[in-house]
Amino acid sequence: MSSRGKTLSLDNINPNAIKVEYAVRGGIPAAAAKYEAELDQGKKLPFDSIVWSNIGNPQQMPNLAQPPLTFWRQIAALTEYPALLDAPKETRDALFPADVQQRARELLDAFGSVGAYTPSKGVALVRKHVAEFVEERDGYPENIENIYLTAGASWGILTLFQALFRSGQDAVLIPIPQYPLYSAALSLFDLEPLHYDLNPDEQWRPSLDNIREQIHRAREQGKTPRAIVVINPGNPTGACMSEEEIQAIIREAYDQGLVIFADEVYQRNVYQTECPFFSFRKVLLDYGKSSNEEERRMSEMVELVSFHSISKGYSGECGRRGGYFELTNIDPQVEAQVNKLVSVSLCPPTQGQIGVDMLVKPPRKGDPSYDLFIQETQKIHDTLEQRSETMAEKFSKLPGIHIEPAMGALYLFPRLHLPKKAWEEAKKQDKKVDELYCRELLDETGICVIPGSGFGEQPVQLEDGTSHSYFRTTVLAKATDQFVERFIKFHTAFMKRYED
Amino acid sequence: MSSRGKTLSLDNINPNAIKVEYAVRGGIPAAAAKYEAELDQGKKLPFDSIVWSNIGNPQQMPNLAQPPLTFWRQIAALTEYPALLDAPKETRDALFPADVQQRARELLDAFGSVGAYTPSKGVALVRKHVAEFVEERDGYPENIENIYLTAGASWGILTLFQALFRSGQDAVLIPIPQYPLYSAALSLFDLEPLHYDLNPDEQWRPSLDNIREQIHRAREQGKTPRAIVVINPGNPTGACMSEEEIQAIIREAYDQGLVIFADEVYQRNVYQTECPFFSFRKVLLDYGKSSNEEERRMSEMVELVSFHSISKGYSGECGRRGGYFELTNIDPQVEAQVNKLVSVSLCPPTQGQIGVDMLVKPPRKGDPSYDLFIQETQKIHDTLEQRSETMAEKFSKLPGIHIEPAMGALYLFPRLHLPKKAWEEAKKQDKKVDELYCRELLDETGICVIPGSGFGEQPVQLEDGTSHSYFRTTVLAKATDQFVERFIKFHTAFMKRYED
Repeated sequence: MSSRGKTLSLDNINPNAIKVEYAVRGGIPAAAAKYEAELDQGKKLPFDSIVWSNIGNPQQMPNLAQPPLTFWRQIAALTEYPALLDAPKETRDALFPADVQQRARELLDAFGSVGAYTPSKGVALVRKHVAEFVEERDGYPENIENIYLTAGASWGILTLFQALFRSGQDAVLIPIPQYPLYSAALSLFDLEPLHYDLNPDEQWRPSLDNIREQIHRAREQGKTPRAIVVINPGNPTGACMSEEEIQAIIREAYDQGLVIFADEVYQRNVYQTECPFFSFRKVLLDYGKSSNEEERRMSEMVELVSFHSISKGYSGECGRRGGYFELTNIDPQVEAQVNKLVSVSLCPPTQGQIGVDMLVKPPRKGDPSYDLFIQETQKIHDTLEQRSETMAEKFSKLPGIHIEPAMGALYLFPRLHLPKKAWEEAKKQDKKVDELYCRELLDETGICVIPGSGFGEQPVQLEDGTSHSYFRTTVLAKATDQFVERFIKFHTAFMKRYED
Repeated sequence: MSSRGKTLSLDNINPNAIKVEYAVRGGIPAAAAKYEAELDQGKKLPFDSIVWSNIGNPQQMPNLAQPPLTFWRQIAALTEYPALLDAPKETRDALFPADVQQRARELLDAFGSVGAYTPSKGVALVRKHVAEFVEERDGYPENIENIYLTAGASWGILTLFQALFRSGQDAVLIPIPQYPLYSAALSLFDLEPLHYDLNPDEQWRPSLDNIREQIHRAREQGKTPRAIVVINPGNPTGACMSEEEIQAIIREAYDQGLVIFADEVYQRNVYQTECPFFSFRKVLLDYGKSSNEEERRMSEMVELVSFHSISKGYSGECGRRGGYFELTNIDPQVEAQVNKLVSVSLCPPTQGQIGVDMLVKPPRKGDPSYDLFIQETQKIHDTLEQRSETMAEKFSKLPGIHIEPAMGALYLFPRLHLPKKAWEEAKKQDKKVDELYCRELLDETGICVIPGSGFGEQPVQLEDGTSHSYFRTTVLAKATDQFVERFIKFHTAFMKRYED
């Protein structure tokens, strides 16, 4: 008899897959899911519900920080079931405004059926609307062939990292702290991550010196730096970049021969007016009007990929998986390869594509749907702003917590100053101190947040034995007893438990 | 001034991406898309429309071989826009049967909002329904943790190949002819493809000798064969495997230490009763009841991944991207890695997940939606069967074409016996003879089919200078003047043009 064991084991599967870490859906959220299942089964725990604050999921129950927009969902329903458009006029007019019916018909014309494959880059009409949107935003026309619709921004980033970079050789600059998709993608494709610091004492501004150091080090080690990732507005930091900061990154990319990956999925989540959103594309193309010849050349040479998503902003439509990326200054032969690779996944989900159409072409003033749309988006804006401010304000009053109000995005990223004994206890448990903190927070309150180390921001022990570390929380939970009061009680007890 | 050129060029992007070929969305479909755009612009061509027969896209216009199922689309509409469930009872009952309303409420309970991320494996309720479906089909219970919902079968295959196999070392057996997703995935992840033949003269039965030869050769070259892909019912061949053939593959996998990837997305597309569909899972688990100890052991040892999809079958819902894979006998530590990797893509699209729910739990006898559902699916079945038969019958009468009626799937895969001069002309144009044939077919008629070489089935020149080659056509186009008559005219002219 054969003594054959299993074919697949941890020893012989893809070692790069094993290296991947993805904290926002990692150990702490997994423990939270287990608690939630236990609560459902009637088990007694120190809390009666999980407060999910681990991931930007604005339509998640019971927070529902962002109820779905009526305009979006009406169009989704009509494109799914076009028979509703053939219902008696009185019935359908009672259910759907005229502009919604018209838009649904236009989309059905373009899609045929939402059950059919579309072109791999997405339906041309939607890409046309994206091109019009970026033209209106940036002031420069766009060719629809530069637009690729995707199943969310993450999918686009994974696909492009895989298409464009060489395993074991190429290196990519990513900010620290970062969104862990980037480090996960680099591990998976065996690419070298080059960490550049964002400075917490200067509103998380990127350090250019640090970027240059990292590039130098990588080259010395025989690696080839090929790209820089910038997240603006920042995740997890919530920082918004000024035009000057963006210019500095573009110059650096030009000098060092780097492709820029601009993750701009939070472009509509901006909560202040001093530092509005500038797209990398606009700042890059503005150089084309410079009187300086080298700057004009820069504008034509620097390769840029910009990402946008329906999962954030006012829509928060994470579940339908939609977004797009836009290629600027990419060599046509390289683009042909991207096009081919994208086709292997056939096409992005049709309701994700329709979502992109809503994102870039919302109702206009005078349309029957306009007033309700404005009312709903304004309410979402106010809710997010208010939850973010209340949380930041209450956190800032706690000893051992330092916090800057977020300028944008959906998160707060408070700094913890924890006592020496907490560091020692973490060490004893073979954990990082921020992991200890977040795990005890979950165990005692049911609040699920992610340690800063999950974003690459490692805890640091200070000379006196105390430590600095971070955690990220979304601002989506109701900022009442559900979250803030439980949190304050926990934090106070934690500081006392580990005090000297 | 910097003389910096572009950073990305064909010379320095991922060479594995460049190697990828994907004929079903490759050069010929691209040429067809160009013609279609020209026709739209009013250009005169030798035909007035493109007949898309390159990919199994049943809801594509204008073929629309499979109109969407009312039950599916009503539930999609209600889950997208739950306000319809709050419409006055009279209105909503006029639009939606009671079972549809109830099912939509049940799904909304499970999903919360379809705009929210779900667990990365998919919503538990849907996975529970999948487990019940496979239990009913195979006679063995299933644990919902073995079920992973996906954005279509392709996505699952790409993700698992990447998670489980080691670049530059591992080898995977794929049938020839095959669906080009497999060769594309192997190129992209730098895995060694081991081609095993399906024998056209024995209803495309796999050759076990050939499988063993390939494994032997790979081991001699220092590669590690890890898995075998089986497509049943076959794509492009349309062949259905008997229970005995499946048993033979399972034994071989056991002896050789191979994981089985069973692509069973056409399990509902079966057009005869002599050789019904057997799932690999059922045949594998049946060995558990054997009186032979080694067979029982086999049943517990052989690792199997089974794939299913909403894109084929009676639903043909390609655009929403939904499907699932099911793990059997996979080591729990390996499964944990799969789970982690899947989480990096966040979650499958929610309407794809809801589609899976419809796929595995259609209306039951006595439900208000049942009669219409049966009527619609029966009509789809009849349409596909009739188009497939008419096409096969008309093709079979043409000189130089040999064809077996398909037992299942959505395709015909006719063999061409072409004159010597066609081979010579192809050589002159630096093409394969099947490419020459398909390209001239497109140029003269607007019919878009894929050369057999796109599926790995290479043309062969015979001793007398003539050749054998293949092409794949879907059976989705109307089998009337739109397709068959244009085709016959072309084929007759082609044979005459190149006759000796």
